[in-house]
Amino acid sequence: MKALYFDGKLSLREVPTPVCAPGEALIKVLMAGICGTDREILKGYSGFHGIPGHEFVGRVVECDDSRWIGKRVVGEINLACGHCHWCARGLGRHCPQRTVLGIVNRPGAFAEYVTLPVENLLDVPDEISDQAATFTEPVAAACEILEQMTLAPGTRVALIGDGRLGLLVAQVLKHAGAHVTLIGRHGWKMDLAREWGVKVLSEGDEELAPSSFPVTVDATGSPHGLSEALRLVEPRGTVVMKSTFHGAATFDATKLVVDEITLLGSRCGVFAPALELLRHDHVSVRHLITKTFRLEQGLEAFEYLDQTSALKVLLEMGT
Amino acid sequence: MKALYFDGKLSLREVPTPVCAPGEALIKVLMAGICGTDREILKGYSGFHGIPGHEFVGRVVECDDSRWIGKRVVGEINLACGHCHWCARGLGRHCPQRTVLGIVNRPGAFAEYVTLPVENLLDVPDEISDQAATFTEPVAAACEILEQMTLAPGTRVALIGDGRLGLLVAQVLKHAGAHVTLIGRHGWKMDLAREWGVKVLSEGDEELAPSSFPVTVDATGSPHGLSEALRLVEPRGTVVMKSTFHGAATFDATKLVVDEITLLGSRCGVFAPALELLRHDHVSVRHLITKTFRLEQGLEAFEYLDQTSALKVLLEMGT
Repeated sequence: MKALYFDGKLSLREVPTPVCAPGEALIKVLMAGICGTDREILKGYSGFHGIPGHEFVGRVVECDDSRWIGKRVVGEINLACGHCHWCARGLGRHCPQRTVLGIVNRPGAFAEYVTLPVENLLDVPDEISDQAATFTEPVAAACEILEQMTLAPGTRVALIGDGRLGLLVAQVLKHAGAHVTLIGRHGWKMDLAREWGVKVLSEGDEELAPSSFPVTVDATGSPHGLSEALRLVEPRGTVVMKSTFHGAATFDATKLVVDEITLLGSRCGVFAPALELLRHDHVSVRHLITKTFRLEQGLEAFEYLDQTSALKVLLEMGT
Repeated sequence: MKALYFDGKLSLREVPTPVCAPGEALIKVLMAGICGTDREILKGYSGFHGIPGHEFVGRVVECDDSRWIGKRVVGEINLACGHCHWCARGLGRHCPQRTVLGIVNRPGAFAEYVTLPVENLLDVPDEISDQAATFTEPVAAACEILEQMTLAPGTRVALIGDGRLGLLVAQVLKHAGAHVTLIGRHGWKMDLAREWGVKVLSEGDEELAPSSFPVTVDATGSPHGLSEALRLVEPRGTVVMKSTFHGAATFDATKLVVDEITLLGSRCGVFAPALELLRHDHVSVRHLITKTFRLEQGLEAFEYLDQTSALKVLLEMGT
């Protein structure tokens, strides 16, 4: 089968079609989304070599359990051991033995086929298009904030970053009843948020006074977002850090301690609530897709992302 | 009166005795403790110029309210406005208009006299010596951790730093039922903790596996403590940052986000629980006092701290 492969350099390769182990399904990938984490992997993040890609929708073509055959599915990306105390607590996504689809020791979805254990799979409701289904993983990541902290309705949240993740987090938190202020750099992305009824300000706007929000979220994907999130949060407030990037972050330790700030790292979420939000169009993704490339054009797709301020770029694996 | 004064350089000076405003008390300082924050102020922390010192015990000599006259008191260090929404929530120590004794815009206690509003004062029970009373503020800072987070009995806590604050935090958390492992560098300080029944390990001990404690506390007062606290904490765990230092901190952003760590800044606490712990000797401080200098020897006391790995150094103001 064809696949994108990273071994220090990304290339399109012919590789053996994977064989599914007992309890796994072989899935024909329909579409996959390129995530910021994929681009970080190309810079060395997680030391991953292999087929990247973890945002996908596909159709099951082989499985011991015949009920799965033919189903259109998305898949949770953490493959947990199922036996440790993390797994017992329902936190398999923190299982220390886990592999992670296209990120840690597990071939990903930028390929014609991918395998996953059936317990990772979820049926995609018919109301959700293939395009929208590729957003399940990032929408789940946005929902994770609500799993980790209590956000009372009406809470004022400053959300920094008008990229893919920022625009999803904005919708998820708004739907949860928060008063979101999105802080961005790109007029056309900020316009999208404005259409959803989200308040929008440009970075550096004088309305953005220090210590003026009880909750701030960094979704910039770069270290500067954390500094701004920390500047804007009020004493005893919470800074949610959603950015994953390769390298160290620097922050104002005095502010964190003196103002008794809580800095909350937040990553993957569970898929079921994300599918519900997508099914009811509480999270709208159709304006977030900038361009779709064929799998064979995968390198071009990554270059396109490097050269533009595109939102989501998808790969289509063909029929 | 005599006072230590910092204006870019620390000196002993003759300055006017302060006059108390309505609602304030004039306090003759009996003893004061030198804190890590005082040493950071001498490096530029908070930009403070004036009389430093915020850990003290003294006797009220003047006050509108005659009931205070002659009382032996300690004083909460944040002077709040009393009217803002922080003050209304009982969080005057985060009031944005506040001054802070010897730290922000308010002359401190390294002097023969100091003034404070009577609402900041607490009577010192007779069971507590002058020496022990000077520890009220740092013990309160240790207790603050328990105000900010739930620490179930039996929780395993790795506490990094065997200095003054570390040894106080160890006792406070142990009294609260935590299983504390103190990680230190100085044999004689670690021996103290061992005597209190605290488990003690040297930095770098092979028992200190990555991601092995649900809660870690950085009480080192330096940036390296945060790195170690983050290394030792398990997924979904909490890192409490008690260190206040001048400058920026650098940390592994990937670990924070991927493991969904909570980093909790923690600073000043309320005095009443601290006085209770000191009164019942649940926190023992008598072995923490390395040396006592007279106020007139204040410069020498700071030099002594620079040149040794002393624990607490006190200043005595005379009778």
